[in-house]
Amino acid sequence: MNFIQSLGTTWTKNNSLLCVGLDPDPAKFPAHLKGKPDAIFEFCKSIADATADLVCCFKPQIAYFAAHRAEDQLEALIAHIHARHPGLPVILDAKRGDIGSTAEQYAIEIFERYQADAITVNPYMGRDSVDPYLAYADKGVILLCRTSNPGGSDLQFLDVGGLKLYEHVAKIIASEWNTTGQCALVVGATFPGEIARVREIVGDMPLLVPGIGAQGGDVEATLKAGRTANGTGLIINNSRAILYAGKGEDYAEAARNAAQTSRDLINRYR
Amino acid sequence: MNFIQSLGTTWTKNNSLLCVGLDPDPAKFPAHLKGKPDAIFEFCKSIADATADLVCCFKPQIAYFAAHRAEDQLEALIAHIHARHPGLPVILDAKRGDIGSTAEQYAIEIFERYQADAITVNPYMGRDSVDPYLAYADKGVILLCRTSNPGGSDLQFLDVGGLKLYEHVAKIIASEWNTTGQCALVVGATFPGEIARVREIVGDMPLLVPGIGAQGGDVEATLKAGRTANGTGLIINNSRAILYAGKGEDYAEAARNAAQTSRDLINRYR
Repeated sequence: MNFIQSLGTTWTKNNSLLCVGLDPDPAKFPAHLKGKPDAIFEFCKSIADATADLVCCFKPQIAYFAAHRAEDQLEALIAHIHARHPGLPVILDAKRGDIGSTAEQYAIEIFERYQADAITVNPYMGRDSVDPYLAYADKGVILLCRTSNPGGSDLQFLDVGGLKLYEHVAKIIASEWNTTGQCALVVGATFPGEIARVREIVGDMPLLVPGIGAQGGDVEATLKAGRTANGTGLIINNSRAILYAGKGEDYAEAARNAAQTSRDLINRYR
Repeated sequence: MNFIQSLGTTWTKNNSLLCVGLDPDPAKFPAHLKGKPDAIFEFCKSIADATADLVCCFKPQIAYFAAHRAEDQLEALIAHIHARHPGLPVILDAKRGDIGSTAEQYAIEIFERYQADAITVNPYMGRDSVDPYLAYADKGVILLCRTSNPGGSDLQFLDVGGLKLYEHVAKIIASEWNTTGQCALVVGATFPGEIARVREIVGDMPLLVPGIGAQGGDVEATLKAGRTANGTGLIINNSRAILYAGKGEDYAEAARNAAQTSRDLINRYR
């Protein structure tokens, strides 16, 4: 089963479009974890185990591990998720993008070393910079289209022959790059009108939507703009509001409660 | 002394615009290194020590280390270059690009953990995705503009109001993003006419030029298109033709000879 198929299964099985973003910041950890050598792994593992039946996938952000020399803990975390929660896909948010020979090395890093099921990729370098990831037929490739940060408009809003650049990116990925059906797109929740525009361009392709919660995106507007006819098609990421819902030893339980609230709120508008 | 100043010093001191790209591929290593646990470090260290007086900087490509779980060897390599060859800048080629809070983590990874002097960054997510790197006042930020791979044209050649996207990127970086003078641009050697166009737009901003050697870029055309009035302004990267010039125990000496040939060829057209 490939990434897109696995996602279809967990959307249904867990009745959830929620993705918990695993962006571990040790400064925000509960006191009893601070200073422990494997605190990053412990923290993320507890959150993952407490929320696994409420999500469609997990999305660790590699920068939060790399900044702390915690590559081994990231490997252990993904291995744990695969062992304990089989069938639940893991997206490694790495936003890689490089020439083919280098992209082959990144693909080894992400898919073989970390055993991630999907990667986020930056499209600026073009189709051949994406092919090495697509060569792994069971993996997903989630390309940046319209990002949720304020500066996202600097380039993505440029007019290219009557389309905005992000619309053009959506169009060429849907019509030219996605020949194998492995692609998805990142479209920020801060811009529901643009989610609707991308949905119009790409049909039922899955959209990874960051920006719910800490970044202020509106859940109802996001769902109305981006859901497909069967009420799926979205991977709605929530990180900080779930990870740091609790500050004490019951942080995993607090995270579960926050994830349940988030999933149920999303489901109200499917 | 910041990155751009250090580069100015090494251009003069070593009479060189050559950058040796450290893209270690264990499959191509000399037989006596194969299977050694620190082969990646040993290989790159020997090449760096053999060529340090012939280059203006080194550029390790992080994917080649990450694919082999060799982050510790990359740390050791950069520490070695700084200790043994003080003043010689190290560019960590990582092509990062993410929202501000995540970019802060990448900046910790690249500048604090690895102690690199400059990083390559993808501009697709806009100005605020670059600010966290610019917050390190002594570091350099080298943004992708026109990349040397065939698919580079897919987005970078789009017409945005009379300019191609890569020209627009050069223009906004030079006129809006580079307020602190820390920026440089990546412009591939496979397109000398485009190097000339970028040079016209950005004045004396340094240009990192990959694509000499294995990718077939022309040295004379590159220099004529991109050199500044004083015969500098370029960081001309050569990786494979230098790293794998020799296949035996004398590989470092062979690399030195290849680097000398490459530097001298470049200098002929300054």
